[in-house]
Amino acid sequence: VSGLQDAVAAVVGASHVLADPGLKAGYEVDWTGRHRGEARFVVRPADTAEVAEVVRLCVREGVPIVPQGGRTSFVGGGVPRGGEVLVSLARLGGVEPVDEAAGQVTAGAGATLADVQAAARSAGLFFPLDFGARDAATVGGVLATNAGGNRAFRHGMARALVAGLEAVLPDGGVVSRLAGLPKDNAGYDLVQLLAGSEGTLGIITRARLRLTTHGASVATALIGLPSTAAAVELSTALQRRLPGLDAAELLYANGLELVCAHERLRPPLPHSHAVYLLAEAAAPEGALEALAEALDGLLPSPEHAVVADDTATRERLWRYREGHTEAVSARWTPLKLDVALPVAGLAAFVEELGRVLTAEAFLWGHAGDGNLHVNVVGLDREQEAGITRAVLELVAAHGGSIGAEHGIGIAKREWLHLTRGPDDLAAMRAVKAALDPAGLMNPGVLL
Amino acid sequence: VSGLQDAVAAVVGASHVLADPGLKAGYEVDWTGRHRGEARFVVRPADTAEVAEVVRLCVREGVPIVPQGGRTSFVGGGVPRGGEVLVSLARLGGVEPVDEAAGQVTAGAGATLADVQAAARSAGLFFPLDFGARDAATVGGVLATNAGGNRAFRHGMARALVAGLEAVLPDGGVVSRLAGLPKDNAGYDLVQLLAGSEGTLGIITRARLRLTTHGASVATALIGLPSTAAAVELSTALQRRLPGLDAAELLYANGLELVCAHERLRPPLPHSHAVYLLAEAAAPEGALEALAEALDGLLPSPEHAVVADDTATRERLWRYREGHTEAVSARWTPLKLDVALPVAGLAAFVEELGRVLTAEAFLWGHAGDGNLHVNVVGLDREQEAGITRAVLELVAAHGGSIGAEHGIGIAKREWLHLTRGPDDLAAMRAVKAALDPAGLMNPGVLL
Repeated sequence: VSGLQDAVAAVVGASHVLADPGLKAGYEVDWTGRHRGEARFVVRPADTAEVAEVVRLCVREGVPIVPQGGRTSFVGGGVPRGGEVLVSLARLGGVEPVDEAAGQVTAGAGATLADVQAAARSAGLFFPLDFGARDAATVGGVLATNAGGNRAFRHGMARALVAGLEAVLPDGGVVSRLAGLPKDNAGYDLVQLLAGSEGTLGIITRARLRLTTHGASVATALIGLPSTAAAVELSTALQRRLPGLDAAELLYANGLELVCAHERLRPPLPHSHAVYLLAEAAAPEGALEALAEALDGLLPSPEHAVVADDTATRERLWRYREGHTEAVSARWTPLKLDVALPVAGLAAFVEELGRVLTAEAFLWGHAGDGNLHVNVVGLDREQEAGITRAVLELVAAHGGSIGAEHGIGIAKREWLHLTRGPDDLAAMRAVKAALDPAGLMNPGVLL
Repeated sequence: VSGLQDAVAAVVGASHVLADPGLKAGYEVDWTGRHRGEARFVVRPADTAEVAEVVRLCVREGVPIVPQGGRTSFVGGGVPRGGEVLVSLARLGGVEPVDEAAGQVTAGAGATLADVQAAARSAGLFFPLDFGARDAATVGGVLATNAGGNRAFRHGMARALVAGLEAVLPDGGVVSRLAGLPKDNAGYDLVQLLAGSEGTLGIITRARLRLTTHGASVATALIGLPSTAAAVELSTALQRRLPGLDAAELLYANGLELVCAHERLRPPLPHSHAVYLLAEAAAPEGALEALAEALDGLLPSPEHAVVADDTATRERLWRYREGHTEAVSARWTPLKLDVALPVAGLAAFVEELGRVLTAEAFLWGHAGDGNLHVNVVGLDREQEAGITRAVLELVAAHGGSIGAEHGIGIAKREWLHLTRGPDDLAAMRAVKAALDPAGLMNPGVLL
């Protein structure tokens, strides 16, 4: 085994192999502190060729591998279970110059989401994938988990935004499809198969990403509402009225209060409301007027909304939403269940959820695509198992998804059967066995 | 073997099993007449369960299967090579009521593209996938081949428009993912794996399709230009100026003349031009004015363009483009090579292509996404092989795709290695072997 470490060090350089417990520690736990495990050692390769060579060495020794991006996953897919070689993609950063003719950009797996967004902006273009962990989440992780976020209801999730990728397969082979051609029907879509496979079919090392344009004028509104049903109705109406609607986020009173306390923010509106919708619209010009006009007649009173296009107010409104994860995690290690429902059935689901949740819970999510983040606090592990089962079974009964945008990872593996049939699961297992017969690539995740 | 036929007849009814040569004949040849073969017999199941049972019976007997949609493929993937059971999906038609809340519709594999377009329109929505064979091409075939067409540069190919599907796997198992949830990260994307797999990984029986909205006002222009470079430049400029640009089609003088002769159409413009761009724009209102304004300053003279929003003229302009396939096929059985180039390199490719093509050729295609249809006529089979190699090698050298929107099928299988590396091909073969270990599902196609 120390032979493997030496061989790996010969490939990447000794300074990029970390075996000291103190140096490894930061890689062995996820952001929430819920998922952790001890890695055999950590390796930080510099490029695709080094990743491939490391994988081949591990395969030769029969040693399992965990690929790691920005450690912002909530389902434990990017940290060790114990005994794996942890392959950090952090050094595969870098964003190439934007290809303006194609409206695409190629980035390394270790580039952050914010890096890609900035590169797009500097070329007058826009990378629409966005969520709170943008400064830490990496291109590789974003694609491996098919991340979603605030704008997915309009622009799609990561899978819709990837035009190509390069990846190291479980046998050390390399697939490189980075041309980004809009039409290229030449065989199975390995790009889409690897995207969302949570590191179980290979290690994504580079990606070709689709960019779009975005209005320079952006306006944001936070609207107080009496119920989930009212928020969904408003979100749906805004989507119809405003082609430039770019976000429709759902907040609840208890979460908003927690964020205000944690970040010492004043409440957004004169009165408290049961539910809040955070809406954002972008347009070439006049987004504020367009958003105000779209809201006209849909609110009982102007006092129920704040609408702004100045940066300071917009950033404050987004803090109410994006502060949720941190505010909850600062006090608890919550049970995080990320689910999606058909939008038309979201309100009914939330109502039934109230009967199932026997402990304090904070809900927030994305009204535009029916994606709800259920955070339950103050449970012991046994209670967590019971609540998990009850919530996910309820989701399945409502025709929803048990892993909307966070994926399955370690956390939900045993529940995959709730929404995937036996033949479907068998097909997924067959694909996994075909590409990773020894089962060494991120074992224990997903399947 | 007649035991298999009896067993299949017991599942679907004897009247839906065709073994008589006269009855089979129409199923055994593709639209072009180039690809043909004798089927063991033809079976016309009525639903997913019957397809699954037929597949299980064939697997038990070790008999290969060819799934068939509308027979409009140009690469031979939907007709027999010889001795297969031909599974026609024609009876799995039907389009369910449009789900307006989700902006989606579920359709059977046998529904035509035109059926889906009509269903969308009747609900005030729009299915953007479109190409000339819309009245014959079916949902199953469109998805199995990842069809592209006129609007792919804006709305994506079939893969981008499928939210879910139901399919029978090569072992007779059934995958059903028809919920169409915008966010559903629960395992490998079997939907995208089956889409574009050309019937080699299973038989698509139903699909959940994404709809969009479309401006009620539509305007079309046909513009004469001196060169491919000028057409690409104009197409790119229009894409920037006109967010509602919906088509940017490329035509050449010799093809246009052939269409005019074949359909007895008068020429579209007072003078002849080397190249033509067919542009279409849609908007809630005023598409004609928007298109005319966008063209302003980009043309040497108003005489170089006809711009119209009346249905009769628009349909005539489209006939100049869509008549190409029929006009060429009426006189020859052309060698059809469907390739794509990076848009910025399309003109340079066409110039070099002229040196490679030693026989008469008709070119047309989609300027918006660099997709060129190369139709070479008057060659014998040996000459065809030489031209195929020369053109596809040139495409690969220019960073293009050898199978842009028609796929690989039988016709281009031996050329797949030009743009897919050995590890990539090995991964595709591993996936195929995992799901179809006996190799009975559309054998000889793609891999």
